[in-house]
Amino acid sequence: MDGLIDALTRIVGAENLADDSLSKDKYGLDWTRFYSADPEIIVFPRSIEMVQQLVKFANENDLPLVPSGGRTGLSGGAVATNREIVVSFEKMNRILEFDRIDDCVTVEPGVITQQLQAFAEDKGLFYPVDFASSGSSQIGGNIATNAGGIKVVRYGLTRDWVVGLKVVTGSGELLNLNRGLVKNATGYDLRHLFIGSEGTLGLVVEATMKLTSIPQDLTVVLLEVPRMSDIIAVLQTFREAIQLSAFEFFSEAALQHVLNHSKSTHPFTAATQYYALLEFENESAETMKQAMKAFETCVEQGWVIDGVVSKSEQQRRDMWAYRERISEAITPFTPYKNDIAVRVSQVPRFLLAVEQKVLDEYPAFEIVWFGHIGDGNLHLNILKPGGWDIDDFKHKCEKVSNKILAIVEQFGGSISAEHGVGLLKRGQLGFSKSAAEIALMKSVKQVFDPKGIMNPGKLLAP
Amino acid sequence: MDGLIDALTRIVGAENLADDSLSKDKYGLDWTRFYSADPEIIVFPRSIEMVQQLVKFANENDLPLVPSGGRTGLSGGAVATNREIVVSFEKMNRILEFDRIDDCVTVEPGVITQQLQAFAEDKGLFYPVDFASSGSSQIGGNIATNAGGIKVVRYGLTRDWVVGLKVVTGSGELLNLNRGLVKNATGYDLRHLFIGSEGTLGLVVEATMKLTSIPQDLTVVLLEVPRMSDIIAVLQTFREAIQLSAFEFFSEAALQHVLNHSKSTHPFTAATQYYALLEFENESAETMKQAMKAFETCVEQGWVIDGVVSKSEQQRRDMWAYRERISEAITPFTPYKNDIAVRVSQVPRFLLAVEQKVLDEYPAFEIVWFGHIGDGNLHLNILKPGGWDIDDFKHKCEKVSNKILAIVEQFGGSISAEHGVGLLKRGQLGFSKSAAEIALMKSVKQVFDPKGIMNPGKLLAP
Repeated sequence: MDGLIDALTRIVGAENLADDSLSKDKYGLDWTRFYSADPEIIVFPRSIEMVQQLVKFANENDLPLVPSGGRTGLSGGAVATNREIVVSFEKMNRILEFDRIDDCVTVEPGVITQQLQAFAEDKGLFYPVDFASSGSSQIGGNIATNAGGIKVVRYGLTRDWVVGLKVVTGSGELLNLNRGLVKNATGYDLRHLFIGSEGTLGLVVEATMKLTSIPQDLTVVLLEVPRMSDIIAVLQTFREAIQLSAFEFFSEAALQHVLNHSKSTHPFTAATQYYALLEFENESAETMKQAMKAFETCVEQGWVIDGVVSKSEQQRRDMWAYRERISEAITPFTPYKNDIAVRVSQVPRFLLAVEQKVLDEYPAFEIVWFGHIGDGNLHLNILKPGGWDIDDFKHKCEKVSNKILAIVEQFGGSISAEHGVGLLKRGQLGFSKSAAEIALMKSVKQVFDPKGIMNPGKLLAP
Repeated sequence: MDGLIDALTRIVGAENLADDSLSKDKYGLDWTRFYSADPEIIVFPRSIEMVQQLVKFANENDLPLVPSGGRTGLSGGAVATNREIVVSFEKMNRILEFDRIDDCVTVEPGVITQQLQAFAEDKGLFYPVDFASSGSSQIGGNIATNAGGIKVVRYGLTRDWVVGLKVVTGSGELLNLNRGLVKNATGYDLRHLFIGSEGTLGLVVEATMKLTSIPQDLTVVLLEVPRMSDIIAVLQTFREAIQLSAFEFFSEAALQHVLNHSKSTHPFTAATQYYALLEFENESAETMKQAMKAFETCVEQGWVIDGVVSKSEQQRRDMWAYRERISEAITPFTPYKNDIAVRVSQVPRFLLAVEQKVLDEYPAFEIVWFGHIGDGNLHLNILKPGGWDIDDFKHKCEKVSNKILAIVEQFGGSISAEHGVGLLKRGQLGFSKSAAEIALMKSVKQVFDPKGIMNPGKLLAP
């Protein structure tokens, strides 16, 4: 468009624009490494008014917009590959208001997750949504993708903490949704429609988040579980005894990668096939007694062969590291990631079915499993065999991926548990949603974004 | 429509139809007493397939449908006054499936709230959404109105317990939404759009509800709080000390009505202006110690002048009765009800502003306040002065109501905290939603119900 820069300068000011190639590369990509950045320009609005003017201008002139938060997404939801205008929220990063009685904090969308967590802690409170990328991810992006993470089993998803939301729709309307109310039975809750919509309906420009009390004396237990089929019985036994704040799992293959990568030693004298990591608040002697009783039951039943309990905060962090460093440790092996979920009760049968399918198709593939098993969420990573060509590997993974997703469909599961759909998985949406549902989603988008300028091509294939 | 009964007979069978005048009166009304029933016929489908056929038939022939659950609504959401076909779910009342690992139960929409509560208890679990009408209200209706009640402060709303939802849209499409998954980041969560939509987008035909663990040793504390302005400090003090499962309040005027109505005696030797009722799980000696410390703080600060603690399950129930019987006790005085909410922090200022407004306008009115103050939800009841004509009273209440709702708007509150909008409050929706938001809601309805046959005229004024 002729005069684009002049027009954008009038809206946000020259100091809030960038079109140099370094900026384009940086703001045109997220953590998904299958795309090439090619945005037209990057805009850094500083206020809701600027966002509204920008969207109205884009709407009038049919210009596509890509919202950009911390760009830590893994499905290409925030990539700009097609001369889009990138709207970065990095300059709208203030914490605006806090109320001690409501335990609510109102933030601009560019506030980083860790910044919100630290703010909460300062006030003697806790923002419980946490994940590996919390040092870079922004609240606006968390809301747009309904971010999950490692504490979902106790605290739920980002959705559960949003009590108020200001959004600018694709036609430039500012909506002030729910306004921090606990109870508000006045029709369609559009707040929930925007949460998880990946910027395809409009832009999150302000959010009011609920905070909770700080967990006390967190304790981690790491367990050796030889058979996958027993892991749900272990979860069940502990869950009935104590309130869990996390229940994660990983395979010996995953652990070996972490040990090699970080040069640390194996937590057990003899290895086994799977490990469960659970965490709870060690509130009283009674809680620990119940936890130990659950442990003994698991051992007596033969589900668990050994376990260790963290005795200090340092030990707790070290034990978490076995789980948290997996992703980093396998990165050099070019993992092909699938982030899938089924009902918790289905996990063992599902995992075995998927593993069998991959090994049948490509016996040379190494599979690394880990995930948030308390939520039924599994991260399936296929590692590139040494010497294979990367494009050939990716192609084979895509072929097997559709077979895996057909199993997900059979189990009534989700093709994207917490990574969103973006560009990467839009073609596979049909494994989790019916044609009727996808058609309705497209019509809903049409309502909020009649010109189709909001993150076009993401989530819904054109 | 000619041949309507024949056509409906083909769909559901003659034994699942009723058009006698008794049935019409019964199924044409809910608990809102301002309307006259005038349905065309009542249909009692027995399966999802029957519902789908029925909706497709209605859609093809432009016939309006009114969904009918336990008909305990207070905003006319389930009344049929205009020759509509009433779709009663009373014959779809089976509990279909339970999974102990997922702690989920799948039910037909006609299952009564108490039936679900009892089923959960049988399994050693707990369905926590509870309110006065739980003996008649149905799960489908609870979902359609996002029912709240007396435990929201701890357990949230109906929305928070729906993990899967099957709905039939206005064009007869069956959607299977979320399927019981904890994590599912695959685009717009239409489940949340249907929750609270009051049957205007489609019909709930099956739901999967999450259950939780049974609370242990519930204990009630009843407190005398002379000044409304202190009640939030009392809430805050207790909330910091212990986990509350309820925090209710009522005025001395409300209590007097209950005492007169049930011929019981005053719980305190000297009355005061307001009472707070709080409940918690008395898990350990430490919990009770913390609760007593909070009580002492409140007394020292002069916020509370006296209190009683339940010592037995019977006493706990008796103390709840002071709060729960208010509605019944004031019914003979033809109360005009407003169900409003603001942020918790705003409650004292808001309550005084509203009270002042009503007394300025109509000094003869008696106001009875009670509500779920832990959620910022207040029930404002204006009683008819003896000898006043009912129509004159209603007219004056409607006049003052708009002034009250203007105060709600100033405070950014909700005109309907948990009673929904229905027919009664659709004209007042603008006090809680902007014109842009209401216009978008209408467009969303158009997507799911293109012919406008689903509960027409409810929630959104034509």
